[in-house]
Amino acid sequence: MNSRRDFIKRTSIAGAGLAFAPNISFGFNPFKGEKLKLAFIGVGLRGTNHLNNAIRRNDTEITAICDIDSDRVDIALKLLEKDGRKKPQVFGKNEMDYLNLLASKEVDAVIISTPWLWHTKMAVAAMEAGKFTGVEVSASQTIEECWDLVNTHERTGTHMMLLENVNFRRDVMAVLNMVKQDVFGELLHFRCGYQHDLRGVKFNDGNSAYGPGVEFGDKGISESKWRTKHSVFRNADTYPTHGVGPIAAMCDINRGNRFGTITSHATKAVGLHKYVVDKGGESHPNTKVKFKQGDIITSTIETANQETIIITHDTNSPRPYSLGFRVQGVNGLWEVDGNRIYVEGKSEPHHWDDATEWIKKYDHPVWKEYEAKATGAGHGGMDYFVMQSFVEAAMANVAPPIDAYDAAAWSAITPLSEISIENNGEPQEFPDFTRGQWIARKPYDWMTTHYGK
Amino acid sequence: MNSRRDFIKRTSIAGAGLAFAPNISFGFNPFKGEKLKLAFIGVGLRGTNHLNNAIRRNDTEITAICDIDSDRVDIALKLLEKDGRKKPQVFGKNEMDYLNLLASKEVDAVIISTPWLWHTKMAVAAMEAGKFTGVEVSASQTIEECWDLVNTHERTGTHMMLLENVNFRRDVMAVLNMVKQDVFGELLHFRCGYQHDLRGVKFNDGNSAYGPGVEFGDKGISESKWRTKHSVFRNADTYPTHGVGPIAAMCDINRGNRFGTITSHATKAVGLHKYVVDKGGESHPNTKVKFKQGDIITSTIETANQETIIITHDTNSPRPYSLGFRVQGVNGLWEVDGNRIYVEGKSEPHHWDDATEWIKKYDHPVWKEYEAKATGAGHGGMDYFVMQSFVEAAMANVAPPIDAYDAAAWSAITPLSEISIENNGEPQEFPDFTRGQWIARKPYDWMTTHYGK
Repeated sequence: MNSRRDFIKRTSIAGAGLAFAPNISFGFNPFKGEKLKLAFIGVGLRGTNHLNNAIRRNDTEITAICDIDSDRVDIALKLLEKDGRKKPQVFGKNEMDYLNLLASKEVDAVIISTPWLWHTKMAVAAMEAGKFTGVEVSASQTIEECWDLVNTHERTGTHMMLLENVNFRRDVMAVLNMVKQDVFGELLHFRCGYQHDLRGVKFNDGNSAYGPGVEFGDKGISESKWRTKHSVFRNADTYPTHGVGPIAAMCDINRGNRFGTITSHATKAVGLHKYVVDKGGESHPNTKVKFKQGDIITSTIETANQETIIITHDTNSPRPYSLGFRVQGVNGLWEVDGNRIYVEGKSEPHHWDDATEWIKKYDHPVWKEYEAKATGAGHGGMDYFVMQSFVEAAMANVAPPIDAYDAAAWSAITPLSEISIENNGEPQEFPDFTRGQWIARKPYDWMTTHYGK
Repeated sequence: MNSRRDFIKRTSIAGAGLAFAPNISFGFNPFKGEKLKLAFIGVGLRGTNHLNNAIRRNDTEITAICDIDSDRVDIALKLLEKDGRKKPQVFGKNEMDYLNLLASKEVDAVIISTPWLWHTKMAVAAMEAGKFTGVEVSASQTIEECWDLVNTHERTGTHMMLLENVNFRRDVMAVLNMVKQDVFGELLHFRCGYQHDLRGVKFNDGNSAYGPGVEFGDKGISESKWRTKHSVFRNADTYPTHGVGPIAAMCDINRGNRFGTITSHATKAVGLHKYVVDKGGESHPNTKVKFKQGDIITSTIETANQETIIITHDTNSPRPYSLGFRVQGVNGLWEVDGNRIYVEGKSEPHHWDDATEWIKKYDHPVWKEYEAKATGAGHGGMDYFVMQSFVEAAMANVAPPIDAYDAAAWSAITPLSEISIENNGEPQEFPDFTRGQWIARKPYDWMTTHYGK
C-alpha cells in the first residue's frame, strides 16, 4: 500500500469538493498502522517546542528538518538522537531550501515555525506540494496573503491548520464547553487580546533571546531579529490570534457566523522608544528609530450574528500578562481577569462566583482524557493538543479544527486594523473568505476528543 | 449688603470673560457669613438624596422645591421640617412651574434632578435666570442640547455643574491623585463604562420602584416611567458619564486635551425582551415592544493627546455591577476589576499588586479631611463631595470642577455613539465645545480640598 504517494495525489484531486465539505474524509485512513512522516521548517524556539511534542508521540516519524541556522539544526538533531529517533533529512543551505524539503516523498505533513513574513509563502508551497500543512501564528500579513491561503487550499484540496495553541488552553476549553452547553445563553459580547510585555523579546543584546540589551534586526537574536521590524513599520494589531482564536471557536466564525466589520484605534507610540532610552541610554543609535506601532491598539469587530468582540494589542508597556478574555451572553459572563463567573439563577444575585469550580466542572473531555500526557508539553499543556489535533487530522486527512478560512479571517485583523487606524477608526469590511459558504458550513465539533474524524 | 441681587447681575455682566478664565473669581465672596439659598427642581429619589446632603450642611438654606408629584413634595417637606428647616416655597402645579421657581429672588443656586429630557431645558433656563446651576447626569440628549449648555453659559456668564458623583468616589480620587503624581507616567489608555443590570429599574409593577413587574412608561413608576423609553427608541450609549467622567478628569479633557473621534458598536438587542417574556409571560403586551438599544454598546474614543478610551454600556443583561475602570500609562496600570495595580520598578515584575494599599497610600486629601462627614451621604460617600463642590463653587461664584464644557463633551457621547452605530461604526468627530480654548485652558485643580477658589 503506497499510501504516501496516494496521499499527495488524492488531496490534489479532491479539490473544491473537500473545501466545501471539509469535515468529510474519504472513508478510509491511509495511515492506519503507520506513522505520520512529519517535517519541520524552522526549528527555533517555537519549532523546537513543536518538535519536542511530536517526539513525545509514538505515531510520528520525523523525516526532515529545515533551518538556515545550523546551531538550531544541531539542537534539533541532538534532541532526536537522544530520543532514539532516526536521523531526518536536513535542509537549510539557503533560504529557499525548504522547497527541497517539500519535494521530498518522505514527508506527509509539515510544521512551519518561521518568522512571520515566511508563513504564507511556505504554507502555500507546502499545500501545493500536497503536504498536510501546519503554520504558526500569525499566518498572513496582508489581505492578499489571506486569500493565498484560502485559494491554495481550495485549488489543491490540501488541508492546512493554523497552530493556535490558546484554543486548547484548559480554562478556554472549559468555557467553550460552557458555551456549547448554553450556560451563558445567546452570545452577545467578547473581549480578548494579547497583553504581554514583549519589550524583552523585541530587544536583546544579540547573545541571549530574553536577556538585556536594546538591539534588534541584524544586531539582535531570536525574535528581535525579525519581529521588532513589524513594530517599526506597522501601526496595526500584529498579533491577534491568541486572543481572537478562542472567541472565534466559541461563536462559530466561518461556520454559521462571520466577522463583519472592524474599527481600530491606536494610542501614541512611546513605550519602545522609552525602553531603548531607559536601558540603552540617550546616545544609543536605536533611540533614533521611529516606532510606528501604537502602544495599545483597540479593535472592535461586529459579527454577522450581531455579537461584538473587543481585541486588545498591548505589548510595548510594562504590565503582567493577560489575554483579557470575557465571554458574555444573555444569561451571564466569564472574565479571566479576576477569575470570575456570573450566571443568572445559579450565582448569588449581583455577586461573582470564583470561576475555579465552574472551570473544573466543565473541564473539556479531551483535557480529562489526556491531562497526564499534556503536562509538561509547554504553555501549560495546551501545546500538546495543538500537536494532537494536527497529527490526528493529518493522519485522517480531514479538515483540522483551525483551517485555512480561520487562518485567513483571524490574520486579516492585522491589515484591516492597520487601514482603520490610518483612517481614524474607519470601519473596514472583512472579506468573506468562505465565498458565502459560512451560512452552510457546519460548526466544528470542538467537543470532540478525536480530531481525525 | 444685598449680595443676592448682585449675584444675578454680576454673573450676567461677566459674560464671555468668565467663560474663558473660568477658574478666576472676582476676588471676593458675596456669601461670606451667609448661607447659600438653594432650590431643588425634582425631588424624586435622586433629588431627595441631594436634598438630604444639602441639609447636612450648615451653609445652605433651602428656599424652594419643585416637583409635579405632590407625594414627593410631601416627603421633601417632612425631611426639612424634621431637620428644623424653614418651609421653602413650593412649586410644581404644572410641568412649567419650575420657571416660577427660577424667577424667585430667594434662589441663588438650583439643583436639577428630573427625567433626562428635562435636563438641558431646565439648566438653560436656570442659567438664563442667573442661578448657579447643578444638573444631574446625563445633561444632554442631542448635540444641539450640548451646545445649548455651552452657549448659555458663555452668553450669561452663569456657571453650571454636572453633578457626576463617580468623580468623587474614593478609589477614583486616589487613582486621580496617582495620575497627578505621575505614578503611571505618560497616559496611554483607559477603560470605563456603565455595567449595571438595570432590568429591575427599567421595569416594575407601577407600585414600587425596584420591585417586580414588567411595566414601564405610563404604567411604570419612578425611573421606569421615563428612562425605559430611551432603550426603546435609541440605539446609543445613553448613560456614559459615570464611566467617562473620572477618566476625563484624569486626562484633562477640555483643558489641554479633548475628545477627538468616537466609534461605537452595538450588539443585538435581546435582553429586555427576554426579561419581559421571562417575568411577564409570553402574552404580556410589552413582549410586542421592539427595544432598539443594543444590549452591550462599545465605544472607543481617541483623544487629542493620542490616548484611547473604551466605554461600555451594559445595562440589559444579568451581571454584577462594575464601572470597569482601567487607567494605563507607560509605567503601569490600575484595574478596578480584580482590584489590582502594577507599577514598573515598584511591583514585583510581571505580578499584580493588590490595589488596596496603593489606594490607601494615595487617598485624596479631601477624603482624608471629610471622611467622617461623607459617611452615609449616599453611594459610599461620594455624594457628599458632589454637594460640597457645588455649594463651595456656588458661594464663591467660580467654575465648578465639572463645568458646561465637560457636561457637553461627556453627554455628546450619547448622540455620537448613536450615529456611529447607525453607520456601522463610522468614526464621529466630537464638536470642540471650547471653540479652540482647550489648548489654553488650565487643568482643573482636582487635588484641591476647597472648590470655592
